[in-house]
Amino acid sequence: MAVPVGLDLPDGLRTPATLVFADRMERNLAAMSAFARDANIALRPHAKTHKCREIARLQMALGARGLSVATVGEAEILARPGNARADGSPDVTDIFVAYPLWADKDLIDRLSRLVDRARITVGADSPEAVRRLAPISRNVQMMIEVDCGLGRSGVSPEEVTKIARAAEHIDLELSGVFTFPGHSYFPGAGARAAREEAAALGRAKDFLARSGFECAERSGGSTPSARHVRETDLTEMRPGVYVFNDAQQVELGVVEMEDVALMVAATVVSRPAPGRFVLDSGSKVLGADRPSWATGHGRLADWPDARVVGLWEHHAVVELEGAGPALGDIVAVVPNHVCTAVNLVPELVVVDGGSVVDVWPVAARAANR
Amino acid sequence: MAVPVGLDLPDGLRTPATLVFADRMERNLAAMSAFARDANIALRPHAKTHKCREIARLQMALGARGLSVATVGEAEILARPGNARADGSPDVTDIFVAYPLWADKDLIDRLSRLVDRARITVGADSPEAVRRLAPISRNVQMMIEVDCGLGRSGVSPEEVTKIARAAEHIDLELSGVFTFPGHSYFPGAGARAAREEAAALGRAKDFLARSGFECAERSGGSTPSARHVRETDLTEMRPGVYVFNDAQQVELGVVEMEDVALMVAATVVSRPAPGRFVLDSGSKVLGADRPSWATGHGRLADWPDARVVGLWEHHAVVELEGAGPALGDIVAVVPNHVCTAVNLVPELVVVDGGSVVDVWPVAARAANR
Repeated sequence: MAVPVGLDLPDGLRTPATLVFADRMERNLAAMSAFARDANIALRPHAKTHKCREIARLQMALGARGLSVATVGEAEILARPGNARADGSPDVTDIFVAYPLWADKDLIDRLSRLVDRARITVGADSPEAVRRLAPISRNVQMMIEVDCGLGRSGVSPEEVTKIARAAEHIDLELSGVFTFPGHSYFPGAGARAAREEAAALGRAKDFLARSGFECAERSGGSTPSARHVRETDLTEMRPGVYVFNDAQQVELGVVEMEDVALMVAATVVSRPAPGRFVLDSGSKVLGADRPSWATGHGRLADWPDARVVGLWEHHAVVELEGAGPALGDIVAVVPNHVCTAVNLVPELVVVDGGSVVDVWPVAARAANR
Repeated sequence: MAVPVGLDLPDGLRTPATLVFADRMERNLAAMSAFARDANIALRPHAKTHKCREIARLQMALGARGLSVATVGEAEILARPGNARADGSPDVTDIFVAYPLWADKDLIDRLSRLVDRARITVGADSPEAVRRLAPISRNVQMMIEVDCGLGRSGVSPEEVTKIARAAEHIDLELSGVFTFPGHSYFPGAGARAAREEAAALGRAKDFLARSGFECAERSGGSTPSARHVRETDLTEMRPGVYVFNDAQQVELGVVEMEDVALMVAATVVSRPAPGRFVLDSGSKVLGADRPSWATGHGRLADWPDARVVGLWEHHAVVELEGAGPALGDIVAVVPNHVCTAVNLVPELVVVDGGSVVDVWPVAARAANR
């Protein structure tokens, strides 16, 4: 078995298996916590990346203010349980659904139950969406989503006031404004995205102030832009990927391969031609995300010159000149986008010092609503 | 609520929801069965697309010879249960693991139990892989994988004999040769891929014959190449996607939008700018597959001019000039690649005549091994 550089793979792995390297993960968690503390910006990690109760509690223990999630379902699974735990580990009691929620009766009912377990804030980017929160307007807080250049959801800073007025009208507390600088996902774009993020949030705050609205929170942050938010006026950052990192972050230059804490163990099942081999880790375990600037469909931790040139559901086709791993060898594959890779498996196999030390359920897997 | 052209969406859908339109699916199943019967080629549908026991039984009832699967796990879940069912519906008793299996002790143990429930054939593309089947060589059959131009796994036709010899050496029955003409997934490429498939399988058969090996089965078939296998020497075809179809098949010209039987119901959660709106169906429900020739990340059944220009985990960004759907409307999104979309959800909501008539568990979801 090929032992990846710097990695100790447990014996007898059954592939494909999604592994978390505990020491690397803990280092990543601690580093981002320290950065946020040092920058005097509250850290509210996005839990869509890991979807694990175990990791949520580690983030809270390291000083996170609360969690960000994308769906009410993720919030339901990760919020403090109805009964306090005996071990006294920190509970998740503050959750921001960082999404332009369109609340129907089902979501209203679920949110109205959820507020007993955690302080809940939801996102909105239209007066219409705000008005739908009327049945729970006294029980939740709201953040207005601003677009800082990505062109996804969120309004321009000029438009925030009408949304604030809609909230005021139903007595819904406005916590502030948020944005996602997702255009940081391009080589060299992190610093500029962070500047645009800060500028958009600042302008939104100014527009709100002119109409007499307070804007206590300016919340932003993606992993590629995270290190550039120091010296900005942000009050909160919401990176998600940093807990594990992935091939995208490595190829963007955000982190080194040694910072990647989640990999898929895969077996070389076929070597049909010189310079080409096939792994049993396909798109149903790695995910199919592949930005235009990526070198391929993920990276091999052990073989920096290898390129994953093709990906099917159960085949990753790798090109590598020279010897490479042999038929039957197990190698470690770094997914392009760890958030979608985690969502594909029921559990994460936690590895430390070359042994399996735990198995964590991906508790909020497929909690898409 | 916008009612898609030709589609009747049930009231009160909670989005995102992965819907199967029963009438369309049954039409697709019947059409492929009739085609195969007419072409005198055995149909062994690939179950990786649907992963549902209910659909497997429908395929068997319509005359399928058995199923293809990609993993032993899929076979375990879809094979005839230990106890016969009372309703007498057709069981799956013949399964081909159409994959270059690298069998370790765990897989050998599982295969040795599985042969009590179904006739099992496995794929191999190296003498080394064949030799690993020695402990179960009297209980399973083997097919040699041939590459017909895709450049994934599989050997060239010239190399099949050494694999046949390895099988003979351990008394493993060789059923024949198989290939996957995946290069059919390019506009206009279906007919040529089918010709190359037939040629490669024919050459492999000839090479085997020269060394005295029989080659009863020549198995091929992808959905884009399926309609081109008439008049070939194939004995078996293994299309998978045809049961549902998807945006890829529509954009390849293989089928019409009316043939698409699986769609994701999604809500318009944001309309941040004229000509742009955001749906709550992201890559965690649609899948991130996006071939270079696709118009976007899926299609809207109702809005042929709409383009899904951006996809994040919980956002599909759609561009469409003119009116389009309103905030809160529910629309039907056709995923690019239905096999990965199905694998993302625990269940499929079966719709007929505008009502939910059933819910099918995606029983073999994430059965990646």
